[in-house]
Amino acid sequence: MTIAGVVDSTPLIDNHAHAVEPQSVETIREAFSTFFTEGELSPHHARHTLNYRAALSLLNSHFGTDDEAELLRRRSEVDLESYSKELIGQTGTEVILADDGFPDLSPTEFQAYTDADVRPILRIEPVIEELIDGHDTFEDVVDEFETTVTEALAGDHVALKSIVAYRTGLNVGAPERSDAREAFDTLGDAWDGRLESKPLVDFFLHRACTLAGAADAPVQLHTGFGDADAHPHFVDPTYLYDLLRTHRETPVVLLHASYPYVRQAGYVTSTFEEAYLDVSLALPFAQNGVEPLLRQVFEVTPTSKVMYGSDAFCIPELYVLAADRIRADLTTVLEDLVAEGFLDEQYAETVARNVLRQNAHSLYGL
Amino acid sequence: MTIAGVVDSTPLIDNHAHAVEPQSVETIREAFSTFFTEGELSPHHARHTLNYRAALSLLNSHFGTDDEAELLRRRSEVDLESYSKELIGQTGTEVILADDGFPDLSPTEFQAYTDADVRPILRIEPVIEELIDGHDTFEDVVDEFETTVTEALAGDHVALKSIVAYRTGLNVGAPERSDAREAFDTLGDAWDGRLESKPLVDFFLHRACTLAGAADAPVQLHTGFGDADAHPHFVDPTYLYDLLRTHRETPVVLLHASYPYVRQAGYVTSTFEEAYLDVSLALPFAQNGVEPLLRQVFEVTPTSKVMYGSDAFCIPELYVLAADRIRADLTTVLEDLVAEGFLDEQYAETVARNVLRQNAHSLYGL
Amino acid sequence: MTIAGVVDSTPLIDNHAHAVEPQSVETIREAFSTFFTEGELSPHHARHTLNYRAALSLLNSHFGTDDEAELLRRRSEVDLESYSKELIGQTGTEVILADDGFPDLSPTEFQAYTDADVRPILRIEPVIEELIDGHDTFEDVVDEFETTVTEALAGDHVALKSIVAYRTGLNVGAPERSDAREAFDTLGDAWDGRLESKPLVDFFLHRACTLAGAADAPVQLHTGFGDADAHPHFVDPTYLYDLLRTHRETPVVLLHASYPYVRQAGYVTSTFEEAYLDVSLALPFAQNGVEPLLRQVFEVTPTSKVMYGSDAFCIPELYVLAADRIRADLTTVLEDLVAEGFLDEQYAETVARNVLRQNAHSLYGL
Repeated sequence: MTIAGVVDSTPLIDNHAHAVEPQSVETIREAFSTFFTEGELSPHHARHTLNYRAALSLLNSHFGTDDEAELLRRRSEVDLESYSKELIGQTGTEVILADDGFPDLSPTEFQAYTDADVRPILRIEPVIEELIDGHDTFEDVVDEFETTVTEALAGDHVALKSIVAYRTGLNVGAPERSDAREAFDTLGDAWDGRLESKPLVDFFLHRACTLAGAADAPVQLHTGFGDADAHPHFVDPTYLYDLLRTHRETPVVLLHASYPYVRQAGYVTSTFEEAYLDVSLALPFAQNGVEPLLRQVFEVTPTSKVMYGSDAFCIPELYVLAADRIRADLTTVLEDLVAEGFLDEQYAETVARNVLRQNAHSLYGL
Repeated sequence: MTIAGVVDSTPLIDNHAHAVEPQSVETIREAFSTFFTEGELSPHHARHTLNYRAALSLLNSHFGTDDEAELLRRRSEVDLESYSKELIGQTGTEVILADDGFPDLSPTEFQAYTDADVRPILRIEPVIEELIDGHDTFEDVVDEFETTVTEALAGDHVALKSIVAYRTGLNVGAPERSDAREAFDTLGDAWDGRLESKPLVDFFLHRACTLAGAADAPVQLHTGFGDADAHPHFVDPTYLYDLLRTHRETPVVLLHASYPYVRQAGYVTSTFEEAYLDVSLALPFAQNGVEPLLRQVFEVTPTSKVMYGSDAFCIPELYVLAADRIRADLTTVLEDLVAEGFLDEQYAETVARNVLRQNAHSLYGL
Repeated sequence: MTIAGVVDSTPLIDNHAHAVEPQSVETIREAFSTFFTEGELSPHHARHTLNYRAALSLLNSHFGTDDEAELLRRRSEVDLESYSKELIGQTGTEVILADDGFPDLSPTEFQAYTDADVRPILRIEPVIEELIDGHDTFEDVVDEFETTVTEALAGDHVALKSIVAYRTGLNVGAPERSDAREAFDTLGDAWDGRLESKPLVDFFLHRACTLAGAADAPVQLHTGFGDADAHPHFVDPTYLYDLLRTHRETPVVLLHASYPYVRQAGYVTSTFEEAYLDVSLALPFAQNGVEPLLRQVFEVTPTSKVMYGSDAFCIPELYVLAADRIRADLTTVLEDLVAEGFLDEQYAETVARNVLRQNAHSLYGL
C-alpha cells in the first residue's frame, strides 16, 4: 500500500474532543466565525483567520454557494443531529474520547450526534468544584474526589483531564496536604464556585496523577494556546518538569502539541518516558502551520507517542477540518520524509497507523 | 489582478520607522555593517550577517561595483537628502509613522529626506524623563505627562510608543499610584536622566494605555529582539498578559513580530481583540527567515491585524531592504497559500492590501 | 568550485564531542536505540525516533542486512578500536575537541579510537567536586580551582565547559565570594559529591569565565535539550543575559544550538560580540529538523560565529550521523540561499568553510 493509501484508510481515534451542542440561529448567523479562533476575538477579526476561511470552504462544498451570509443562513437551519452525523461520518472517525467538562452536553448525550463510539474523559476541576460546593471539610472533599476518580476510571472513563493551565499555570507546585487543607479552610465566603486556589489546584492534580497511575490511565493536560483566561507564558510544557519527575509512572498527554511551544513539547516528550503528545486544536487551528508543526513534532518526539486529536467542540465542522488536515498533512510530511531519506516507506506507513489510531488504542486501552 | 500585481502596486504604510540621520564619513566607511545588526556586534561579525550581505547587494546595484571598500567609499560621499529621497522613493511608501524618540533628528526634520508623508509617534519614556528633570513633585510630573500625551494625540501624533521592554521588561506590574510616588520620591541624587525604576515605568505605561484608549489611539510596544540593554527573556510578548487584560479597550501593537517569539505573538494577537502585530525589524533583519515568519504569523493571527513596518533607522537603505523583502515574500507566501488551498485568490489579494496598507490606515485613523 | 564541492572537501573541526567507550554486548543488543535519544526513554520508544531510524540505515549500509536484531548482533561483535577508526575516518574529521567530563574514557585514551587529532576541553564541575572532596576550606578550593584551570588552559586544553544548565540552570546569579564561602561551609555531611549548590555553581562559573577571558580561551555552555536532570525551562540561552553582560571579553559558546530555543540562541549570538553558536547534538538528533534549524541559525547569527560539532558520545555511529547530516543539509541550505538571492555563490562557499572548520580554528586557536 502507499502512504496515502494507509492514511486515507486508517480509521481515526480522536483522543481529545468535545461534544457538539445545539446553537441558536443568531449565534450561527452572527458569530459562527468565533468558533474558529480561541481567545476573545470578535467576528470582525475572527472572520480573518485562515481557520475560518477553511470553514467557509467546507460550508461552500456542503451547501453549494460561496456567499457568506447565505452559507450561514443555510447552516443555521440544519437539523443538528443528522448534520453532525453526516459531517463526523465523513471523517472516518471510529472512536472519540470526549472531555466531559465542556460543553454542557454530556458525552453520553453526544452519542446521539455521531456514529463514532464516544468514550468519556473525566475533567477533574468541575469534580473538585462540585465537591467543595457540597462538603464542609477538606478531608471529605479529598475522600470523595478519590472515590469519584477511582470509580470513573474503573467504569467508562478512559482518562482524566486537567485544565490547571487555565487556572494557575503548568508550574505545578508540590503543596503539602496541610497547605491544601489550609487553603480549603480559608475559602470561606469568597468561594464562588471557581477553583483558583493554587495549593488546592496543585494538590488535587497530584492526587489525580497518583490515582491515574495506579489505574494505568493517562492524564491529559491542557498545554499551549486556548481561552483568554490562561496566562500565555505558563502554558509552556517545560513548566511541567517537576510534576513529570514526581509521577514517572503516570502517562501524561500534552494536549494541543503545546502550540506555540511545539518544539518544547518535543523536548519534554523525548525526555520523559511517560509523556505523550496530542496534536489537537493546533490542528486545525494553525492551518498552514500544521505541516511544519508535524515536521517539528517528528524532530525528536518518538513517533510511538504522537496521537491524532481534533479538540472539536460545539460544532461538527471542526471535526471535519481537523480530520481533513491530518490526512492531508500527515501524508505530505511522511511522503517528504521518505523522499528525503529519513524514513523508509514501510516504516512511514507504520507511523501513519500509529499516529492516527494505534498509539491512542494502546495508551487508552481501547 | 494577480497577487503579485496587487502587492507591487499597493502603496505602503510603514507603521513603525525612524528618521534617517546624517552619518560621518568614518562611520559609513568603517561601521556601515553595524546598522544591519542589533546588539553590540563589531563590524568584524556584523559583516557576516545575511542582512548586511543584502545591503551590499543593494549598494552594488546602486553604485555599480562589487568591491566592498569602494562601495562604502562612494556611499560615504552621497548627498543624504537626495539619496534618501531616491531610495525611500523607490519603495513606494506613502506614509511613514516615525518614532520621535530615536534618532535625534525629529520626524518633522525627517520630512526633508523623504517624499512620503511623515507622521510622528510619541515615545513616552523620553517625555517622562524630561518631566522628571524639570519638576519637583510626582503629581506635577503626572499632570504634565497627561497633558503632553493628550495634546500630542489630539495634535499630529498618531500613536504612542513604549520601550518598557528595554527598561524593565514586558512583565508590566500594576503599581499603585502611591508606589510610583514613593519610587519618584526616592530617586533623589541617583537620578541620572534614565528612567529605570520599575514602579515608575509601569505606572506611566498604564497611564499611557488609559489615555490612548480614551483617544482611540494605539500604543506601540517594543517586543522581541533589539539593543543589548533589553533582557532577551522579558521581551517575550506573553508577559504582556496582565497589561492586555487591564486595557482591553486600548489598541496595542506588538512591534517586530516579537521575533524570535513569533508564534507567541500570534498566540497573543489571536487571543486579545485589541492586540495587533507589526512585522518591522524582523523584516528585513531576519532575511531568509521572513518568509517562514510570515507563514507563522498567518497561522493564527487574523490577517486583519498584521501590518507592514520597516523599523528603518538612520540610513535609507533599511527602508529599501524592508520594502523589497515584504513585497517579495508576501507575494510568495500568499501565492503558496492559494496553491495549497488555504486561501482563494480574491481573499489573498485582500490580505495583501490589508497588510501593506489598509490595516494600518484603519488602526491609526490616517 | 561548487558549494557541494567545498562542503564535501572541507575537513571538519568538531568543536564539541565526547570519547567513544566500550559497551557491553547486552547494551548494544538491548539498548542501542537509547544512544540516539536524550532523557530517560526506554528502547520501546527510543526505537521510534528518526535519529535511531537513521542509525539503522547506517548499520544496514555497513553490515549489509536490514534485519534489526541481526544488525545489533553484528554490531555487538565489532572490535571497537578499528570500527571506530573506520567510522570516524569516513567523516573527514581533522580535529575533535573532546569534553573530558564524560564518559570515563579520557580524551587521551580516546585517541586510540580515532585518527583525528583529539584535543581536550576541561569540564569544570567535576574539577570543583573533586576539590571539595579533597579540601577543607573554601579558599583552598578556590585557589586550587584557579591553578587547575589556568594550568589546563596553558597546557593542552583548548576550552572550558560548564554544565551549569544541568545543575542549577542558565539563570546564573552573581553571588559574592562570601555567599559562596557560606554555601561551602554549610555543605557539611550532606555533601554527596554532586555540586548542586547554586551559590557555588554560579561563583565558580564566574571564576571560570574570568580565567578563560584572561587566557583568551572560550567557555562552552550546555544550552538546550539533554539529559532529564536539566530543567527544560532554564536551559533557554536568554537566561544567560547577565552572565554575558558581566563577561563581555570571554568567548562563550552556546552548545547544541540551544535546541529547541534555536531562534533565541540566534538572538543572543547576534546581540553579544563574544557569544558563539555550536550546532552539535541538535545535529544529528533533530534529523529532519536540522535543515530548518540551519536556516533559522542564519537568520540573524553572523555566519562567522556558527560552528560544526557532533556531541557524539560513547558510540562512533553518532560521529557519522552528525557529519553526514551537516554535509547534506549545509549544502542544501547554502544552495537554496544562493538560489533565493540571499547569498552569492562565492560568499556561500566562504560560509561553508567557516562553519565546518575556520570559525572553530580561529576561536580555539588551533
